[in-house]
Amino acid sequence: MLVVMRHGAPAADVERVVAVINEMGYVAHPMPGAQRTAVGLVGNDGRVDAGRIEALPSVVRIIHVTQPYKQVSREWRPESTVVTIAPGVSFGGKDVPVIAGPCSVESEAQIIRAAELVRDAGGTALRGGAFKPRSSPYAFQGLGVEGLKLLVRAREETGLPIVTEAMDDEGARLVGEHADCIQIGARNMQNYSLLKTVGKLGRPVLLKRGMAATISDLLLSAEYILAEGNSQVILCERGVRTFDPAVRNMFDLTSIPMVHELSHLPIVADPSHGTGLRDMVTPMARAAVAAGADGIIVEMHPEPDRALSDGAQSLYPKQFADLMIELRGVALAIGRALPPSPEL
Amino acid sequence: MLVVMRHGAPAADVERVVAVINEMGYVAHPMPGAQRTAVGLVGNDGRVDAGRIEALPSVVRIIHVTQPYKQVSREWRPESTVVTIAPGVSFGGKDVPVIAGPCSVESEAQIIRAAELVRDAGGTALRGGAFKPRSSPYAFQGLGVEGLKLLVRAREETGLPIVTEAMDDEGARLVGEHADCIQIGARNMQNYSLLKTVGKLGRPVLLKRGMAATISDLLLSAEYILAEGNSQVILCERGVRTFDPAVRNMFDLTSIPMVHELSHLPIVADPSHGTGLRDMVTPMARAAVAAGADGIIVEMHPEPDRALSDGAQSLYPKQFADLMIELRGVALAIGRALPPSPEL
Amino acid sequence: MLVVMRHGAPAADVERVVAVINEMGYVAHPMPGAQRTAVGLVGNDGRVDAGRIEALPSVVRIIHVTQPYKQVSREWRPESTVVTIAPGVSFGGKDVPVIAGPCSVESEAQIIRAAELVRDAGGTALRGGAFKPRSSPYAFQGLGVEGLKLLVRAREETGLPIVTEAMDDEGARLVGEHADCIQIGARNMQNYSLLKTVGKLGRPVLLKRGMAATISDLLLSAEYILAEGNSQVILCERGVRTFDPAVRNMFDLTSIPMVHELSHLPIVADPSHGTGLRDMVTPMARAAVAAGADGIIVEMHPEPDRALSDGAQSLYPKQFADLMIELRGVALAIGRALPPSPEL
Amino acid sequence: MLVVMRHGAPAADVERVVAVINEMGYVAHPMPGAQRTAVGLVGNDGRVDAGRIEALPSVVRIIHVTQPYKQVSREWRPESTVVTIAPGVSFGGKDVPVIAGPCSVESEAQIIRAAELVRDAGGTALRGGAFKPRSSPYAFQGLGVEGLKLLVRAREETGLPIVTEAMDDEGARLVGEHADCIQIGARNMQNYSLLKTVGKLGRPVLLKRGMAATISDLLLSAEYILAEGNSQVILCERGVRTFDPAVRNMFDLTSIPMVHELSHLPIVADPSHGTGLRDMVTPMARAAVAAGADGIIVEMHPEPDRALSDGAQSLYPKQFADLMIELRGVALAIGRALPPSPEL
Repeated sequence: MLVVMRHGAPAADVERVVAVINEMGYVAHPMPGAQRTAVGLVGNDGRVDAGRIEALPSVVRIIHVTQPYKQVSREWRPESTVVTIAPGVSFGGKDVPVIAGPCSVESEAQIIRAAELVRDAGGTALRGGAFKPRSSPYAFQGLGVEGLKLLVRAREETGLPIVTEAMDDEGARLVGEHADCIQIGARNMQNYSLLKTVGKLGRPVLLKRGMAATISDLLLSAEYILAEGNSQVILCERGVRTFDPAVRNMFDLTSIPMVHELSHLPIVADPSHGTGLRDMVTPMARAAVAAGADGIIVEMHPEPDRALSDGAQSLYPKQFADLMIELRGVALAIGRALPPSPEL
Repeated sequence: MLVVMRHGAPAADVERVVAVINEMGYVAHPMPGAQRTAVGLVGNDGRVDAGRIEALPSVVRIIHVTQPYKQVSREWRPESTVVTIAPGVSFGGKDVPVIAGPCSVESEAQIIRAAELVRDAGGTALRGGAFKPRSSPYAFQGLGVEGLKLLVRAREETGLPIVTEAMDDEGARLVGEHADCIQIGARNMQNYSLLKTVGKLGRPVLLKRGMAATISDLLLSAEYILAEGNSQVILCERGVRTFDPAVRNMFDLTSIPMVHELSHLPIVADPSHGTGLRDMVTPMARAAVAAGADGIIVEMHPEPDRALSDGAQSLYPKQFADLMIELRGVALAIGRALPPSPEL
Repeated sequence: MLVVMRHGAPAADVERVVAVINEMGYVAHPMPGAQRTAVGLVGNDGRVDAGRIEALPSVVRIIHVTQPYKQVSREWRPESTVVTIAPGVSFGGKDVPVIAGPCSVESEAQIIRAAELVRDAGGTALRGGAFKPRSSPYAFQGLGVEGLKLLVRAREETGLPIVTEAMDDEGARLVGEHADCIQIGARNMQNYSLLKTVGKLGRPVLLKRGMAATISDLLLSAEYILAEGNSQVILCERGVRTFDPAVRNMFDLTSIPMVHELSHLPIVADPSHGTGLRDMVTPMARAAVAAGADGIIVEMHPEPDRALSDGAQSLYPKQFADLMIELRGVALAIGRALPPSPEL
Repeated sequence: MLVVMRHGAPAADVERVVAVINEMGYVAHPMPGAQRTAVGLVGNDGRVDAGRIEALPSVVRIIHVTQPYKQVSREWRPESTVVTIAPGVSFGGKDVPVIAGPCSVESEAQIIRAAELVRDAGGTALRGGAFKPRSSPYAFQGLGVEGLKLLVRAREETGLPIVTEAMDDEGARLVGEHADCIQIGARNMQNYSLLKTVGKLGRPVLLKRGMAATISDLLLSAEYILAEGNSQVILCERGVRTFDPAVRNMFDLTSIPMVHELSHLPIVADPSHGTGLRDMVTPMARAAVAAGADGIIVEMHPEPDRALSDGAQSLYPKQFADLMIELRGVALAIGRALPPSPEL
């Protein structure tokens, strides 16, 4: 950590910063420069709370050299973490699993049909929302527990493991009981109470990046889960807010190699929410795999025209089957592979 | 709602859109243009879920003419809502109350001293975090219930009503019991479970804008609370994400007149989080009042150098007292007034 | 400048960084930390090109402690610069001059009428575009030299000095001949050839912030003008790009106190472009003055309904006259003053 | 175009909008809705200036249904444009050419060595800046005309066509004389005088997206060039401003399929500026090809450690050679191909 003093700071102010750093148990390293003095704090174990120093007189700003997270960092654990949500379905290794399914679970027929289509095209896991976070209180909010049971039925039929979202503590416990992986949505990425709850549950977690979260914010949220003892965390890029009305979100694929550099956790990409437009899903799913994504999560609906939510970004079954073929080619080109579906 | 068809869409696709609109119980109004056809949906009561139409063939995009929220809109209720959190402390009328206090409750001595300083300078209410959402799991997380009790002690000493944050359902119930106004923080603005909970509690709610929330998103989150029967909602501008590293957030003061145009709810401004820099707080608090803010919420600490959180953006007591004098002048210049503190 | 090495960087890489810094004529200051080593570069005069060091092996990133600009900084010149564009019309002192007029010069009658309305309401200078940068090549591009001559006619009639935009070298020379202050628009903020040209012309320059420029970028662009020997630069906040479709731009008023802290140059605010909506102009102009703006530049059209450009953000004459009264009140409340118009 | 009236707008205001639309020569189509009336403007040929209508009383906002550009749109010209900058070097067909070279031309030895390395690895064209737009006036500004001559020497040696930037009218003429393709940089994307100049020169133009330009803005800037009679325009995605300090820019690869949908012009991607970090260049170049980019432009320096600019984002020669191999694989997987270099 580097403490930058203002131009012309009196010696007494610099000394006070040094004294406070020492008092906190670290080593202070003053660097008088041509224009201003900076004081290095040496020995930071990633837990220094900068607030106290930032408030001292003549301190202009604090520069963090060390990342604020710890257990999620690759420096903490150099080898990549592989998260296995079901036998043969792993994220973070050579495989690039594809999680697909409708935005919402709507009926038994719909979710079972969706699961069959996913399986038949070579998809690896089934997604589908039972608890839905909707911007409007008047929009369809999901079938709740009933939806979870239908997902379980679809797993029984197809063998595909289930990934579905939880929005609160009670939901997390229910999802943890029924599903193979608990999804935390973008809107709840900094819902720390929920993060602690899923940290304690011990189930694999798919943590989506918040709408305006930096990569550091995303890793810090994952740190909340690891700090509770659960290291089975899959990160997910799903696009961030943008000034360009042409797309719903800006799909930040650079986050994929960046997370691989900074952290040992796997990261998957969601081109459906990442673009918000059906026609963009296929090229951007290809791009995500080429960028090194450890998996793809994509919306596919048996009949998008009749979807109760997000129909416009859901692929048609035929589009999904074609996508799978294209993704196999791209994965192969970079030395990775789409897994065979669990059924085959 | 306007449904834009792609250039050269076949007549059958246009007819299908018309049919679906009629089937949904609304009136379709096709407008064949020089380059493309658009179909107007007339009769939208704010509850149309666009997803189904958006997914139809040849539909390029959906344009929303009507706002997606309802009870929070000024069209729904033309006269401004006045939210009273304690006798004589109202937001949304002529008064511009000032809520001040430390980021976190740290000790009995600290919070009582802070409350006295707020009261003596003419502040109207006391803020102070008992439950703290921190980006890092290793940062100080607040004193919890103990902090709530200390806030109550400070209210007994000074008569100032209390505003403090809740982060989950259990916290909301506790805060609702002890405090005069429940704050929902930026990170939880779209935690819909929590919004429903505070909607049911019936206590006044201070709802902060999320880090990348549009004004429409903020109003939709408020709609969740009103939809549960609680109309005592104060909105709060606290800055949004920015590309400029010079400031912590971009303080979007235009949201103030914009909310006044779109909604009947009061809106206050938080220049401490809105800028993240102590030296910017005073000019930006003045600017917020000049823009028409219905109140100011600001961080002040008896000893910022010893604060356990956010010290760098907390005002010194003397700065706060000076700020109050400046705010009185600006409020007066635009025909409003800072209220006398409840004690006087 | 601080050079951060990666975790586990070999000693040879650290030594190479030290050697390169010494070779460049600065002093290297290695700081071995608990997790990684950082090397301070001491003696930076603001001209170090970081590229060379950034490219060395094991260098993770470069942290700039010193600002990259020089002559525009308040450290270089502590007292505020006052820019006088005509006798009695100064920016950067106690006065808060108001520059007003239509987006485009459309006809002799229109611009003279506009100038009279500005003068009669107490405005200080006349704005009006002769050369117009328009997003579309098919939109009205301005009257060009003819427009400049009409502005001169309006100045003869009313005594108001003229501020108008130049878009290229030839235009800059023409504007420099006829007008009192050359405006550089947001789209040309980083058109360095144009900045050098106006730097050489010696006329006062009003430099608008680019659509996604940081405050540091804005100051660096001003540095281009000062580096040519012209210190008569007025900066202008006019809003930046935003994810919120509710407004055309996000009006970043914090840039005003921030520029005052970092630079000696005056800064004015443009609430017309800063919001893009007529109803937001008055509250946000008040807010800008309260934040400490050294002037206001605002669009007013004798008949906005007939404007050839930007009609929707232009004030009606009556609104402008009312605005002037409100601004006088706010200026007074913070110890500043709107100047009497030159004619009075 | 859709004109939205405010809730409760008097009939007279609606009639006035209708009258103005008719007066402008278009057909008005009023749609009275449950909450408000909207008026459709039918017959828009892409040249309607909305300003006049936007300013009418009771008009809340204008919604554009038709895109504001024309000749660049795929509706105007359905078949893709192929831009050929030299025999065998074409953008917009099946080939995916790779343009590579140093940020700046520094010396004869450097640029010839760079060109040889590009050619030997299979690159298709040489990039290298002679005129450099630098944020700071004190940074290296390029060798100017001398640099152009060195580029010509490198072309003589290797046969690679040259792409280099022009920053003003005089520079554009010089670049047009010496180089095969004139680059317009991000900072000058809305320098309309320069766009008109290169439109008249008739040489192929590589137009980079501005730092906060929407895709629509980028296409409108291209429209300026086409409107002067030059349709040889290659667009370029190079990242946009972001709130995340982890990267220099946010590389918006969705712009590639989006441009392909909206326009017939080819689009290439620049992962060097798009990320600003050498380690991100290779994965993001692969991702760009997978997303459908019509070419790649990348920085490679014979000795990045000694580069006078942008050393940190320049690839080492070995990295570039490896990149070429990876790109061939990805291109093949999606049915495209990297061209053999012109020399082979």
